[in-house]
Amino acid sequence: MYSLTVRDSIMIAHSFKGDVFGPAQALHGATFVVEMTLRRPEIDADGLVADIGLASRLLKAVLAPLNYANLDDLPEFAGINTTTEFLAGEIHRRISAALRAGELGIPATTFPSLRVRLRESPVAWADYDAPPA
Amino acid sequence: MYSLTVRDSIMIAHSFKGDVFGPAQALHGATFVVEMTLRRPEIDADGLVADIGLASRLLKAVLAPLNYANLDDLPEFAGINTTTEFLAGEIHRRISAALRAGELGIPATTFPSLRVRLRESPVAWADYDAPPA
Amino acid sequence: MYSLTVRDSIMIAHSFKGDVFGPAQALHGATFVVEMTLRRPEIDADGLVADIGLASRLLKAVLAPLNYANLDDLPEFAGINTTTEFLAGEIHRRISAALRAGELGIPATTFPSLRVRLRESPVAWADYDAPPA
Amino acid sequence: MYSLTVRDSIMIAHSFKGDVFGPAQALHGATFVVEMTLRRPEIDADGLVADIGLASRLLKAVLAPLNYANLDDLPEFAGINTTTEFLAGEIHRRISAALRAGELGIPATTFPSLRVRLRESPVAWADYDAPPA
Amino acid sequence: MYSLTVRDSIMIAHSFKGDVFGPAQALHGATFVVEMTLRRPEIDADGLVADIGLASRLLKAVLAPLNYANLDDLPEFAGINTTTEFLAGEIHRRISAALRAGELGIPATTFPSLRVRLRESPVAWADYDAPPA
Amino acid sequence: MYSLTVRDSIMIAHSFKGDVFGPAQALHGATFVVEMTLRRPEIDADGLVADIGLASRLLKAVLAPLNYANLDDLPEFAGINTTTEFLAGEIHRRISAALRAGELGIPATTFPSLRVRLRESPVAWADYDAPPA
Repeated sequence: MYSLTVRDSIMIAHSFKGDVFGPAQALHGATFVVEMTLRRPEIDADGLVADIGLASRLLKAVLAPLNYANLDDLPEFAGINTTTEFLAGEIHRRISAALRAGELGIPATTFPSLRVRLRESPVAWADYDAPPA
Repeated sequence: MYSLTVRDSIMIAHSFKGDVFGPAQALHGATFVVEMTLRRPEIDADGLVADIGLASRLLKAVLAPLNYANLDDLPEFAGINTTTEFLAGEIHRRISAALRAGELGIPATTFPSLRVRLRESPVAWADYDAPPA
Repeated sequence: MYSLTVRDSIMIAHSFKGDVFGPAQALHGATFVVEMTLRRPEIDADGLVADIGLASRLLKAVLAPLNYANLDDLPEFAGINTTTEFLAGEIHRRISAALRAGELGIPATTFPSLRVRLRESPVAWADYDAPPA
Repeated sequence: MYSLTVRDSIMIAHSFKGDVFGPAQALHGATFVVEMTLRRPEIDADGLVADIGLASRLLKAVLAPLNYANLDDLPEFAGINTTTEFLAGEIHRRISAALRAGELGIPATTFPSLRVRLRESPVAWADYDAPPA
Repeated sequence: MYSLTVRDSIMIAHSFKGDVFGPAQALHGATFVVEMTLRRPEIDADGLVADIGLASRLLKAVLAPLNYANLDDLPEFAGINTTTEFLAGEIHRRISAALRAGELGIPATTFPSLRVRLRESPVAWADYDAPPA
Repeated sequence: MYSLTVRDSIMIAHSFKGDVFGPAQALHGATFVVEMTLRRPEIDADGLVADIGLASRLLKAVLAPLNYANLDDLPEFAGINTTTEFLAGEIHRRISAALRAGELGIPATTFPSLRVRLRESPVAWADYDAPPA
């Protein structure tokens, strides 16, 4: 299996509901370094898993509505704790939708799996790994 | 599959037995950067794989008996080469025991797999990846 | 000249006032990786620039009131853009005050200079470097 | 499953054929940081996945014919785009051949899988992961 | 003294003349991670050393003519070994010219010094540090 | 001012004397990532601060007697706490001696200053910076 990973980052504010979060119940924020990994059994005739320029732009476009945002204000996250894990899953869903919309110029089914990693600090990160179906 | 990773480090002394180890047969030491990755099919109602505070404390507690130790002096390692690979497995067993003892407040079976990575230098590291059974 | 550096991190929310900030005028946030560098012409009789345990606790204590905070809500920052550069200077002032209060157990004048670095992402960081006077 | 990873790097020139490559159609180059991961179900009697010295030398030997080379001039790459993905696969094939030739002193079948990662920049990397068969 | 650093990268081909270069006399290449550090005694009324967006674009614009290039083909480098050290100096000269041309919207003399760092691999890098005069 | 930095690492055991060291009074160890920075006002006719191959070999040769050693057993360190700061200074003295012995093929006075950095973990490091006189 081949894979290609591209990386970008976003800076967001948010707060969490629930005693388990301790001080993170207060409004705070994070720089999330986001890594998108596309897996593909064979490379194409050009030698690629995906066009790295298109892949980087797709990732940046998916992240744009979240970048410089207070996630507590976004209607789609009402009532949701936007934890690092949740956001890894959510960004996975949004990348998957972009892949299914053909934004890489090849079918989403070309990629049997997609991993999204969000690094919140040098000592903590979360992944979501699943088919982009 | 979701995952959460937390990172800590320890500083230990040890020596190895066997010609294969060359100069590492002498008493020397290492800083091991230790990464614990918990995998879970779905996040919980709070949006978590695990409480990151509890997970970080669990890792630190598991590492404490090894930190600032000469592993050659620890009775449980008598006759054993405490290689990076071995220690990845050993720390995996100790984290698994802590998970089974309920130290994250959820059943160990919540996590179908657990990976422990030990980085010994910028150019070498070892993993052990298995169910925390 | 010798130096010792210790590192920690904080997660904050804030917003900026002024067209120069573009999208960062909205409430957003950051993980700041904070590096404190103490410089000293000679090491002490123990071989130290400073007790690394004390130095790490001093840094964590200085950062605590900022961690998990919305900087826009802190009265001391009213009317101020809490940019990465400003915060490097502000944390420098707070560390300097702690050094002058003797929190490392040695006079602040032991250290002719102190550098504070804040990394806001893998591609941007800011420093403030001055005597801790 | 245990794994051991060792890392090295090479500096190469190359160019690509095809409009998809945009400016990378011109002769340019890259520093590739190469990570070789050997997986093995159990460690051996010495506590090892593989002799780390032998593994590091095997990787360096495999990379030597590519290091400081213009890949466009190497006959084995005639008519091929030596993309990061392709090179991950090619280096995998060459490491696999070395393993099958017994260069680690143990059968290649000891390792059910082998992953080769090439980092081309801080924001992009590619893997090839397969049995070394 | 305050400073702000922004980072980008380029991928180039080149070769060196002189026995001292050994195998690097052959046409090869590099990914250079380029860090531009602007120093300034005081931050401005907005709390900035420089507008980070402008600074990042200035760096990218300065690097553009070098990115995806064979430096051996650029007329301005005829007869010159484009070593990492030389390129740190050359990029410093080009950034300085851009600063003097007012591309950050403030006088170049605002910055008493400018450092350019080029990382050629995880184990080697070079700096040039001087006033942008 | 130009500079060139090369990096290597060593794995050592040691212990410290003095209550200030707490648990580090026990025999433990460290991986030290060692960075040697040579500064030089102008590059030479080849475009170099120093021959990077020679510089890397000089660093490795200086580190060799410390690598895989228990520093407590080395006679030159009898009665000394081999702290990270001390070792930065000690390695600086040994590199300086090698420079004065002409091991880079140019006079030590070519380099007005030399910095040695030792990273003991991702969160702590020490420097010694002085002329190699």
